[in-house]
Amino acid sequence: MLEHKTKHTDVQVFGPDEDLKTDAVTLEEPLEIWIAYKDKDGKPVEYSLSITMRTPGDDEALAVGFLYTEGIVSDLDDIENVEFFGPFTEPLMIQNQIKIYLNSHERIAEKNYQRYFYSNSSCGVCGKSSIKALELLHQPEIEENSFRIHDRDLRQLPGRLRVTQTEFDRTGGLHGVALVNQEGEILLTMEDVGRHNALDKLIGSLLLNSSLKVKNKMVLVSGRVSFELVQKALMADIPFMAAISAPSSAAVDLAKAFDMTLVGFLGNNEYNIYNKAHRIFT
Amino acid sequence: MLEHKTKHTDVQVFGPDEDLKTDAVTLEEPLEIWIAYKDKDGKPVEYSLSITMRTPGDDEALAVGFLYTEGIVSDLDDIENVEFFGPFTEPLMIQNQIKIYLNSHERIAEKNYQRYFYSNSSCGVCGKSSIKALELLHQPEIEENSFRIHDRDLRQLPGRLRVTQTEFDRTGGLHGVALVNQEGEILLTMEDVGRHNALDKLIGSLLLNSSLKVKNKMVLVSGRVSFELVQKALMADIPFMAAISAPSSAAVDLAKAFDMTLVGFLGNNEYNIYNKAHRIFT
Repeated sequence: MLEHKTKHTDVQVFGPDEDLKTDAVTLEEPLEIWIAYKDKDGKPVEYSLSITMRTPGDDEALAVGFLYTEGIVSDLDDIENVEFFGPFTEPLMIQNQIKIYLNSHERIAEKNYQRYFYSNSSCGVCGKSSIKALELLHQPEIEENSFRIHDRDLRQLPGRLRVTQTEFDRTGGLHGVALVNQEGEILLTMEDVGRHNALDKLIGSLLLNSSLKVKNKMVLVSGRVSFELVQKALMADIPFMAAISAPSSAAVDLAKAFDMTLVGFLGNNEYNIYNKAHRIFT
Repeated sequence: MLEHKTKHTDVQVFGPDEDLKTDAVTLEEPLEIWIAYKDKDGKPVEYSLSITMRTPGDDEALAVGFLYTEGIVSDLDDIENVEFFGPFTEPLMIQNQIKIYLNSHERIAEKNYQRYFYSNSSCGVCGKSSIKALELLHQPEIEENSFRIHDRDLRQLPGRLRVTQTEFDRTGGLHGVALVNQEGEILLTMEDVGRHNALDKLIGSLLLNSSLKVKNKMVLVSGRVSFELVQKALMADIPFMAAISAPSSAAVDLAKAFDMTLVGFLGNNEYNIYNKAHRIFT
């Protein structure tokens, strides 16, 4: 099917003086992600794994990125096919259901991911057990010297991100996530109404379409950094995350546990380094 | 147990000039919500319903509000008891598991909420089926004339919210949600690292502790408005929601379906009315 490219819809709104005008509103629609595979007896199984409210577009990348950052697939070889299904919904005429056919091999055949996902999603019941849970899923390989960036380039990133975030300018309603190289160049930006979706789209897109490596890149986030965002980046072995706004305590703890550099409140004149300052030089 | 009152933790950070300073970081810890009740044969059942990453504090309100906005309880009579359990986690020495004992009566005994929650959480697979799903859970009772606010009072709300958001000032990492009356007075504010949690805390707190009615009040949100936030407010029959930032398309559609007034980009000099302008007068 054709990829959906429009990320907003125009609505009529009243201002304070009862003046009628048009406002561009960010699209938010559900995407239901299904997986299908053969179990260890060769019997085909399939089920709905998750529903996420997302901005339509790059849905294949979102679904593949989600399976990757949840530890269900570990590379493209795990995926046989991706297809949309279900009704075309009004008024956008897009499909909101997507099915990922997994290649059948032992690791995948033996798990019931529905139960697994339900009981393990995001975290354990304390910071420490959350970190342990991530270790069991994937031991991040963060190299000490794989990524360095000049202080001057780092400070320019918020301005550069804003230029690439075309939809944010229009609606004010989207989170942006960008992949950045050691020269401070933005290589790819993804936007979504949910920040976790934007990062899944970025990681999924790299997995699907790109020869770009992530182990010597950084990720820039337009808003705040939660536990979930750091976790997703660590699943992809990304060594450096910077955010325009604040990190949470769990985000800081998780970055420290795996030697990721974490920068918050990134602006032209100021930023905070929460962990591993050696990757920034002057 | 003692309610946890600290919403941030101090961490050491480096600035661009390698100056070491202290930054207050918003706490983010998991809360696992369990429910316990007797099934239709009188047999006790209990299970973990959900894990959410939240800022500790007002956890009972969060858990009760969550059950309410998910349609599992409809008033305080449905709840027999609320208790924390599990280990006291380092370094905060708080418990991150909470169990809600439901009063056993027919409506509750017959459902398996674990399966129900998993398959129905938030939405169907298109905007329309999402709205239908909400109707089945709870038909919102939004009265045409139960709430009106003066344009002048509405414009002053962002400034008033900022005054009550003490933690946001400190960390920049919290979403705030406030209950506001027809005179534009803020009656209660809740903050959390997750905006859905902040609204669940507000609604849960009203259910647990307060004689405040919500049908003639509005809710003010510090950031953006998603489908999920409008849905939660509609579960409590709140007729008016205003946000400092942008709404999504699904938020606008849902407000329209149930005659809720929705205001976005609320500032001193400007705002957009996405639906039902008659509740604002000059």
